[in-house]
Amino acid sequence: MTDALITRLNYQDTDFTGKLDALLAWDSVSDHKVADAVADILHQVKTRGDAAVVEYTNRFDRRDVQSFAELVVPPEALQKALESIGAPEREALQEAARRVRVYHEHQRQESWRYTEPDGTVLGQQITPMERVGLYVPGGKASYPSSVLMNAIPAKVAGVDELTMVVPAPDGELNQMVLAAAAIAGVDRVITAGGAQAVAALAYGTETVAKVDKIVGPGNIFVATAKRAVFGQVAIDMIAGPSEILVLCDGQTDPDWIAMDLFSQAEHDEQAQSILISPDGEFLDKVEAAMARLLPEMSREPIIRESLRNRGALIKVDTMDQAIALSNRIAPEHLEVSVADPDTLLPQIRHAGAIFMGRHTPEALGDYCAGPNHVLPTSGTARFSSPLGVYDFQKRSSIIYASPEGASTLAHTAATLARSEDLEAHALSADYRKR
Amino acid sequence: MTDALITRLNYQDTDFTGKLDALLAWDSVSDHKVADAVADILHQVKTRGDAAVVEYTNRFDRRDVQSFAELVVPPEALQKALESIGAPEREALQEAARRVRVYHEHQRQESWRYTEPDGTVLGQQITPMERVGLYVPGGKASYPSSVLMNAIPAKVAGVDELTMVVPAPDGELNQMVLAAAAIAGVDRVITAGGAQAVAALAYGTETVAKVDKIVGPGNIFVATAKRAVFGQVAIDMIAGPSEILVLCDGQTDPDWIAMDLFSQAEHDEQAQSILISPDGEFLDKVEAAMARLLPEMSREPIIRESLRNRGALIKVDTMDQAIALSNRIAPEHLEVSVADPDTLLPQIRHAGAIFMGRHTPEALGDYCAGPNHVLPTSGTARFSSPLGVYDFQKRSSIIYASPEGASTLAHTAATLARSEDLEAHALSADYRKR
Repeated sequence: MTDALITRLNYQDTDFTGKLDALLAWDSVSDHKVADAVADILHQVKTRGDAAVVEYTNRFDRRDVQSFAELVVPPEALQKALESIGAPEREALQEAARRVRVYHEHQRQESWRYTEPDGTVLGQQITPMERVGLYVPGGKASYPSSVLMNAIPAKVAGVDELTMVVPAPDGELNQMVLAAAAIAGVDRVITAGGAQAVAALAYGTETVAKVDKIVGPGNIFVATAKRAVFGQVAIDMIAGPSEILVLCDGQTDPDWIAMDLFSQAEHDEQAQSILISPDGEFLDKVEAAMARLLPEMSREPIIRESLRNRGALIKVDTMDQAIALSNRIAPEHLEVSVADPDTLLPQIRHAGAIFMGRHTPEALGDYCAGPNHVLPTSGTARFSSPLGVYDFQKRSSIIYASPEGASTLAHTAATLARSEDLEAHALSADYRKR
Repeated sequence: MTDALITRLNYQDTDFTGKLDALLAWDSVSDHKVADAVADILHQVKTRGDAAVVEYTNRFDRRDVQSFAELVVPPEALQKALESIGAPEREALQEAARRVRVYHEHQRQESWRYTEPDGTVLGQQITPMERVGLYVPGGKASYPSSVLMNAIPAKVAGVDELTMVVPAPDGELNQMVLAAAAIAGVDRVITAGGAQAVAALAYGTETVAKVDKIVGPGNIFVATAKRAVFGQVAIDMIAGPSEILVLCDGQTDPDWIAMDLFSQAEHDEQAQSILISPDGEFLDKVEAAMARLLPEMSREPIIRESLRNRGALIKVDTMDQAIALSNRIAPEHLEVSVADPDTLLPQIRHAGAIFMGRHTPEALGDYCAGPNHVLPTSGTARFSSPLGVYDFQKRSSIIYASPEGASTLAHTAATLARSEDLEAHALSADYRKR
């Protein structure tokens, strides 16, 4: 028995469902040691503010700063970073930012109201959040594209102040990340990370204003800290490993599909790449392409591990079966690599982002197509949505009763209030009767 | 020194801010005993399904059922409840439901897409959640209005299956609650409550299909269970005590304002009623009205306790100060009881629902004006919104690159992917270059 490159499944297999469930299963490990360490850091920063952040930053990031002021990146440094990077990279960042901005401008919600015949006005007022914190990981996982994807929707929403925190291990910062911050309009950059940075944003310190929401990816310490401060402030989702599901009719170049699967697998060993097709020979061709292309990949060990642990090529009987499986998986990224994807779209119920046709690999969406690359993972597309402008706006209901309207409404309200034994509610309504 | 009915504050007080903060402070008590008990119940229901729910229900609700089937309310019972209640109550429920439905239909989001000059299509597809669970408390806190407010937005959103769980202590059910469920179009009612009902909805059992989201208020066991299953399924907010902030220019009938404050205070001892006015004499009049009206109230002890613990009448110098305070408090309910509230509206940034003018007491919005009465509490209106249709829909991004569009986008994507050391991303994009 050889060690297979990737799991092969067939919808006709006995216990196909059980096998699929096993493949999809993923649990975030909740570690008590991490939780305790994070609780301590949160408490220290909450009670001692700037000083605690400085101490933890010196310790964890091997820095040697005397005061919090040294953690604040001067605004000129952002502009300088933008000038320092290569022209192709600068232009690519600017073009990506432009497209992301245009797309997200379509998401802006507008206030509305309507007037009833008796003069009563009902509506909804949209306002942006005041302050948002953006976490950006340091080191290897420090992605400029993430800065654009998190910061631009907040600025399109009209957020007043966007503070980015990014650790600078040994004092080193990724210039592309700073350049992206400059392009996205980040208001302030602080070189701190981990739970201490999350705490500073959530509780505020002498130097950092408490924010309303914290977004952005991070390691287990950051995720645990975000979960702990949830409620005090809003947070975005806690992401699981990234995944792609490709549905293919068997007519796309197998090399293309193989590389699309690799592009997910190269993220990390827990990433998941699944291909579903009614064409068994096509699955063979893709597997052969993977075997051929893999040895040339710079991240070959990660890709190999990810495919072996969590990847799958699944043979189905029909495209309808493929769609049904897709709805069950509720993938983060869904590629519909077929001739006419629009005919399938109405049947797709749960997916973070849908990449349609043979010419739309996920990578285009990861960087520059326009839609957000922060997407619901691990089947949460059943109830969650891509990050967007609406994550940085909120709604207030508007009720403006005319004297006549109030009198009519008061009858209904008082009747229901009395049925709930809430007398003051009833009287408060009754007072407005004519 | 007399035991004051309600705290009086003045913006000019020394340490006004500190006093206000102390008044607003509210922390949900996280009790380890509760957390442990809930964790055990969740585990039992997750592993033993229906049988565990039956056992806990028999124990906690003093029931004596043999099988889960006995916990399911037959659909006829809902219709029968609707016919059994008084005609005025039935008509009031129907009228409230109608108005809530009309308002929420304005919130329905539509899918959209746009085509770029090179043929690339970008968009957003809106789909409803499949299954939603609605928690309704039993006994005294069992409010028919809550059933309408939680169920109607879900049905307007297009949710396929809405399951309501409601405990029936000693086998007793509130007929108004069942009638409201009938009117709102609830698909299924199960008489179970507590953490065991939340677990059944979150994990599924032999009889209950796993839901995508759980909404609705509940006691500390329910709230703890919801927090624990968050991530597995979506949940609505965990609500704190209800609060009202009234801004008044001093020209509204003091009795009206007194009763509006009572209507909040009568909910429970932790509820918060605050009035802010630039007119000190008006505050005196309202206090006098409260003293006069209070002894007649059926919930007098609760109101008295709530006002003493958490209520306040605050004198400011100007309406601008009042608005600034309001934005700081970010109230759940905000009454703007002035002659021309529309002139103040643009300055109001954070509030769950805004009740405008002298004829719009909160009670109208609690029952029948149309907007939702499930609102962000404890200052979370800074980053949260009223419950609405958007809580039961989700968005999928659509990207459909034309061959020409893909070729252009691939340049940008590949450049950025290489800057992030993600070679497979770059190649996957490169393959689509012409």
